[in-house]
Amino acid sequence: MLRVAIIGASGYTGVELARILCNHPEFELTAATSRQYAGKPLSVVFPNLLGKTDLVCENLSIDELCNRADLFFAAVPHKTAMDLVPQLLKEGKKVVDLSADYRLRDVATYEEWYQEHSSPEFIKEAAYGLPELYREQIQKARLVANPGCYPTSVVLGLAPLLQEGLIDPDTIIVDSKSGTTGAGRAANVGTLFCEVHDGFKAYKVGGTHRHLPEIEQELSALNKDKVTISFTPHLLPIARGILSTSYANLTSPVSENDLRKLYSNMYEMEPFVRLLPEGSFPATQHVRGSNFCDIGYAIDKRANRIIVVTAIDNIVKGAAGQAVHNMNLMCGIEESTGLGGAPFFP
Amino acid sequence: MLRVAIIGASGYTGVELARILCNHPEFELTAATSRQYAGKPLSVVFPNLLGKTDLVCENLSIDELCNRADLFFAAVPHKTAMDLVPQLLKEGKKVVDLSADYRLRDVATYEEWYQEHSSPEFIKEAAYGLPELYREQIQKARLVANPGCYPTSVVLGLAPLLQEGLIDPDTIIVDSKSGTTGAGRAANVGTLFCEVHDGFKAYKVGGTHRHLPEIEQELSALNKDKVTISFTPHLLPIARGILSTSYANLTSPVSENDLRKLYSNMYEMEPFVRLLPEGSFPATQHVRGSNFCDIGYAIDKRANRIIVVTAIDNIVKGAAGQAVHNMNLMCGIEESTGLGGAPFFP
Amino acid sequence: MLRVAIIGASGYTGVELARILCNHPEFELTAATSRQYAGKPLSVVFPNLLGKTDLVCENLSIDELCNRADLFFAAVPHKTAMDLVPQLLKEGKKVVDLSADYRLRDVATYEEWYQEHSSPEFIKEAAYGLPELYREQIQKARLVANPGCYPTSVVLGLAPLLQEGLIDPDTIIVDSKSGTTGAGRAANVGTLFCEVHDGFKAYKVGGTHRHLPEIEQELSALNKDKVTISFTPHLLPIARGILSTSYANLTSPVSENDLRKLYSNMYEMEPFVRLLPEGSFPATQHVRGSNFCDIGYAIDKRANRIIVVTAIDNIVKGAAGQAVHNMNLMCGIEESTGLGGAPFFP
Amino acid sequence: MLRVAIIGASGYTGVELARILCNHPEFELTAATSRQYAGKPLSVVFPNLLGKTDLVCENLSIDELCNRADLFFAAVPHKTAMDLVPQLLKEGKKVVDLSADYRLRDVATYEEWYQEHSSPEFIKEAAYGLPELYREQIQKARLVANPGCYPTSVVLGLAPLLQEGLIDPDTIIVDSKSGTTGAGRAANVGTLFCEVHDGFKAYKVGGTHRHLPEIEQELSALNKDKVTISFTPHLLPIARGILSTSYANLTSPVSENDLRKLYSNMYEMEPFVRLLPEGSFPATQHVRGSNFCDIGYAIDKRANRIIVVTAIDNIVKGAAGQAVHNMNLMCGIEESTGLGGAPFFP
Repeated sequence: MLRVAIIGASGYTGVELARILCNHPEFELTAATSRQYAGKPLSVVFPNLLGKTDLVCENLSIDELCNRADLFFAAVPHKTAMDLVPQLLKEGKKVVDLSADYRLRDVATYEEWYQEHSSPEFIKEAAYGLPELYREQIQKARLVANPGCYPTSVVLGLAPLLQEGLIDPDTIIVDSKSGTTGAGRAANVGTLFCEVHDGFKAYKVGGTHRHLPEIEQELSALNKDKVTISFTPHLLPIARGILSTSYANLTSPVSENDLRKLYSNMYEMEPFVRLLPEGSFPATQHVRGSNFCDIGYAIDKRANRIIVVTAIDNIVKGAAGQAVHNMNLMCGIEESTGLGGAPFFP
Repeated sequence: MLRVAIIGASGYTGVELARILCNHPEFELTAATSRQYAGKPLSVVFPNLLGKTDLVCENLSIDELCNRADLFFAAVPHKTAMDLVPQLLKEGKKVVDLSADYRLRDVATYEEWYQEHSSPEFIKEAAYGLPELYREQIQKARLVANPGCYPTSVVLGLAPLLQEGLIDPDTIIVDSKSGTTGAGRAANVGTLFCEVHDGFKAYKVGGTHRHLPEIEQELSALNKDKVTISFTPHLLPIARGILSTSYANLTSPVSENDLRKLYSNMYEMEPFVRLLPEGSFPATQHVRGSNFCDIGYAIDKRANRIIVVTAIDNIVKGAAGQAVHNMNLMCGIEESTGLGGAPFFP
Repeated sequence: MLRVAIIGASGYTGVELARILCNHPEFELTAATSRQYAGKPLSVVFPNLLGKTDLVCENLSIDELCNRADLFFAAVPHKTAMDLVPQLLKEGKKVVDLSADYRLRDVATYEEWYQEHSSPEFIKEAAYGLPELYREQIQKARLVANPGCYPTSVVLGLAPLLQEGLIDPDTIIVDSKSGTTGAGRAANVGTLFCEVHDGFKAYKVGGTHRHLPEIEQELSALNKDKVTISFTPHLLPIARGILSTSYANLTSPVSENDLRKLYSNMYEMEPFVRLLPEGSFPATQHVRGSNFCDIGYAIDKRANRIIVVTAIDNIVKGAAGQAVHNMNLMCGIEESTGLGGAPFFP
Repeated sequence: MLRVAIIGASGYTGVELARILCNHPEFELTAATSRQYAGKPLSVVFPNLLGKTDLVCENLSIDELCNRADLFFAAVPHKTAMDLVPQLLKEGKKVVDLSADYRLRDVATYEEWYQEHSSPEFIKEAAYGLPELYREQIQKARLVANPGCYPTSVVLGLAPLLQEGLIDPDTIIVDSKSGTTGAGRAANVGTLFCEVHDGFKAYKVGGTHRHLPEIEQELSALNKDKVTISFTPHLLPIARGILSTSYANLTSPVSENDLRKLYSNMYEMEPFVRLLPEGSFPATQHVRGSNFCDIGYAIDKRANRIIVVTAIDNIVKGAAGQAVHNMNLMCGIEESTGLGGAPFFP
């Protein structure tokens, strides 16, 4: 068994990592850190884990951490991660970083959208942890930057179209809707039950969400030229799930048959991408609790556009599940290990 | 007191009409029809109305209806309405029709998206019941076609921009999200609690929803030229509310100040449109139970687009409330009568 | 118009008071205090109120408050209220206090369950603001202690049975379920959307909730002898509503007919109590947004028990609505003024 | 691999059985029947299963079924089951019946609460499938009557107390709350999203729910004398979960320490019962998606009662999961096989 630690176990990503790792046959969860809950059993912080783990949350130094595990999931906020990760790497550890700190390859862009970067020298070696696009890099990496939840849902949906030049990049509009786990577990009036329940709203309207440069980075790489998009996130009164609806003008007519081939070629061997049957569209409740990304699309002939709809569970494929997928790849384990459960519905 | 009847009182629009009319100082609800629940008190079908009305649901002929009331809300499905409404008009009654049957001015378009029309001669005289755009016609009308819920939310948001020529009509994309009351009260597996709850999905993707020609009709009228848009509806796990996010390319640079003037000029005297402060965006939970349409917008400078976000309560401003607003106008009553309640939050 | 102020306007009770007062024909809301949001328009703190009030939240001294209004709703936490209320009374103001500070007539009991009382001399003159039981005292009072939400839902359901001696007080068990507005609007991990949504739990199990002595005080008064009950509150994933299911052994056989007479005698003239038809039981969604308390009951012949089920909207009949009802009574206004809206469903 | 079939795969229990069996290492799902969806892939009926199973729903005769599998989960309504099960047994098959048809050992009681029984001779040999109480019988059985969801949640909570004679059986009151999956997947106005969402209600008040005789049967067996209880079910606006709050008078004083020993003795070796730490109480969101039954309790010293709170996922431990647990036992497989996943939260 490989020894694995979660740094920052008290958030929703942390508990989901713990849930997955509890049942992982190759990884053993040997440490979970939390400053706030240090001394408390993880199963007291998250009673769903009672009987599944006896770990106690600890506030550990890097040295202590390095004694306790060889593989690390850094589930701490950006900025905290960039100070922590280099020390782990220097000790020869493997790290999947779930923060934004190593996702943007261009330091200036990172510093424009976030803040000064304290360890930019590690950005270059970080693999972007979207296995469907970067599997080989991930397999060789000792540091993987786990993608943002919105970017995961958007990039997988548009990748075949951009690679093939089927859409006009200047016309891409992405309208995304996220469950509330995406807002984290900090005490906050805005995410209280009574504020979110039975409601729906847009936020960061006008191209100001920090996942935007990450999405554009990946779409630009696929397009082999800079892409600028409009992206509007919304907050759903659900716990888990992101559904992204993406629009783009077609550059030339394309048949449903050709589209299907295009998507199949890219994804039919992928363990965690499901192409829905023609005329079916994703729903967050059908990927809930799983590492799947579901994809559906339709051509709007009247307007000469394609609409691509994708759904993921934002804390699985959009965070913890994809992180475990990446770690499996980094360790040479069969890549879907520990991630095979079917989505639960209802 | 004016005598008012609801034809088709057993749906969600019916109960909301009844709720509003119970407290309306000028209208007296004198009949409520329902084939399915004939003989049952309305307050047994909808226990929220207990103590507010003693009406019993009845299955009434047109003649009986005409004896019982002078003003009619037709809350029956399309096709049923087109057979019913002409008879009421011939008896000199005033009618607000909440179906789609008189909304589309072009019969051929209606017949393409719905079915053959049995009383096309009444289409011409029907006023389109969006008071912010058609107040004078409504005041003079004996038949008002109450707008669809999606069209209400979209048209109000884009009207000032199209009137002023500020956006390129070919680039309009509308991504709408509706609460489940929009799907009606028929027994149906797809709208069971366990299917909708904690989930989110797109439907009618690719430009196939029947509200599309209605939206385009109104946008074309504002644009004074034919407009073709992309429109994608989604189903929200909430009861009441529609939030529409609309995107369009700007035809020329425009300042926040000019935009505010534009929207203010159009809406500042409107009793049911609220422009949100700069940087604020609508949320369905802030219009819940009210006849308000909230509007916010932002310019996405990177992409040279404007994003307009609107929120309504789909069974109030999108149906029953707007219908009462229209009837107030048709009867020469102060137009906000019976509709003054503040939205309830949370 | 009578000048009314809300002290502590930034909680869910505060916004509901504001919502009701915005449409009250006799009261004018002239001040709203909030330390946290001082300087912000109330309609920015609660965007549902946009267009309904221009009030700005202020941090006012007692003197300033006394200049601004004659009637006060104190919607501050217990302990804060007991320091504040006496000063208002000394200035000749009328006060409805929504905290627990003047509800318990026995100071020792108050101090056992809460803390030391700084103004016990005012407890005696405070009327307990349950109009169905204390209407005359309320009409004469200058200080009304607005009942707790759980007590309101329990006492109204059991009052006729205890008054008539039909149940054995030693066997009373109350199982209550409350919506999350009852937990207030403070930032708190336990009431985050993702913690409450799609879940259900008991809390304060074993007779430790502070509403217990209040319930027992009122049941004891009805019973004319001390009553000790078991009371278990639960947290519902809904915003508004309390449903209480109360159980007690019957002291002697009673017919459905006699029971109905008993309840009708007590409540048929009450504007805000609805007895449901035989075989029907309350649902929180049927009182939502209204000041109604719905009551249903059934005899369990096999076990010789009666089960009484009551439903209220906890922030209306359980807080803000009942407070306005009380103030109407204190001011000699028709008691249901401003509270006549039908519940909204769905 | 053992060949397993689901008879009646189109309900919520059916899909959950399929979800569990998809990942079960010893069972292979070889047939799934549904009259309504015959010819449709199970993954079209339930898109969460896409990529996890290629089974197509079929309408199979008993003979065809017997050729296709050796182990059967009968997830059909009561009455249908009693006609079907005997034929499977005669062919030498093993059956877990999830209907009520073989749960009640007394035929007269069954016929009083349900209808005439067509195969009463099989009742005697059916093991009651609550492994914590009937493990040995289940291991030897060819027919297991899978318990009802409410009975599972109630009996496990009260069993230690009744066995030890610590509570007065005449004082037992059970207040249960169930998620909406318990109401099934039939099209029905009463379980539409808009009827259930953001609401809460009691139903079958007064001792009329069909799970009552089943609960009393098991409590009576534990008590070694007839027990009559009051039982009130409620409908929660959640998909999965039952929380039962049970009350009873203590027959003699008992320490927290002794209680803990009592519960530990009974459950510490059980793979699917979790005793919560002192002062903690179950929440449905902490057992979601798992086969756990969580138990907490408190003594109400003021009233001399014990309150026991239990939580299960009603379609796992209350249906599909317990059924698989039973089948594991019947087949001599390690009993928690396929059921080891941690609950997912949030």
